[in-house]
Amino acid sequence: MFELHPQLAADTVPIVTWPLSEVLLINDANYPWLLLVPARDNLRDFDDLAPDDLRRASEETVRASKALKTAFAPDKINVGALGNMVPQLHIHVIARFIDDAAWPQPIWGVVPAQPYKADALEARLAVLRDAFGES
Amino acid sequence: MFELHPQLAADTVPIVTWPLSEVLLINDANYPWLLLVPARDNLRDFDDLAPDDLRRASEETVRASKALKTAFAPDKINVGALGNMVPQLHIHVIARFIDDAAWPQPIWGVVPAQPYKADALEARLAVLRDAFGES
Repeated sequence: MFELHPQLAADTVPIVTWPLSEVLLINDANYPWLLLVPARDNLRDFDDLAPDDLRRASEETVRASKALKTAFAPDKINVGALGNMVPQLHIHVIARFIDDAAWPQPIWGVVPAQPYKADALEARLAVLRDAFGES
Repeated sequence: MFELHPQLAADTVPIVTWPLSEVLLINDANYPWLLLVPARDNLRDFDDLAPDDLRRASEETVRASKALKTAFAPDKINVGALGNMVPQLHIHVIARFIDDAAWPQPIWGVVPAQPYKADALEARLAVLRDAFGES
């Protein structure tokens, strides 16, 4: 039984379920920031994925990247699977802009998270679902 | 004609050529830190990879991760494709330890790079080639 790590649940809002991953929005209005969490037990590192799931994870990373490009026209996409603090495998897919709060650094730990206000969150989720073809 | 970005060439030492990627060691003794650079022109983001190359890139990321685990028994593997400063697609694969210089933060920008001394570099390359099955 897959269960989302409580820290990831606390930091995110669910958007959609894909064949492998739960697709989540990090609740930080500083960046359009997605998290893909493969819904399998006991994954920690990217290389723990079974071969079919590895293919799905890379395809879903591409799908998330392309949706961010469609929705936000960013200057760069950042992809990362770090997990030093939360041991459940999760893949960050982040739209970056040359005028964002952390550019050109990686986003982690640069500025405090700014939780979305309710209407901004609804608007962002709608744009993302549309870009995912899920609206 | 693929050409390695001069900044990546300056920061690394070549180890081996795989079907898709040039496999490089970042010249920073703080961490066992590999860079995979897909040898294709005009790639910037992970989602720029053609489907067959996407499969190769994910397989080579797994191969690099497993080799780092074999060689160094790290506490965690970090994987990332950021590229905010160097626009040529490159995938970081880093062995992390709970007592390393940046733990639990991502490694980028935390402490200055410590170039390997000549004999330490040779030793590290030998261990990596052995873990890759290339020795």
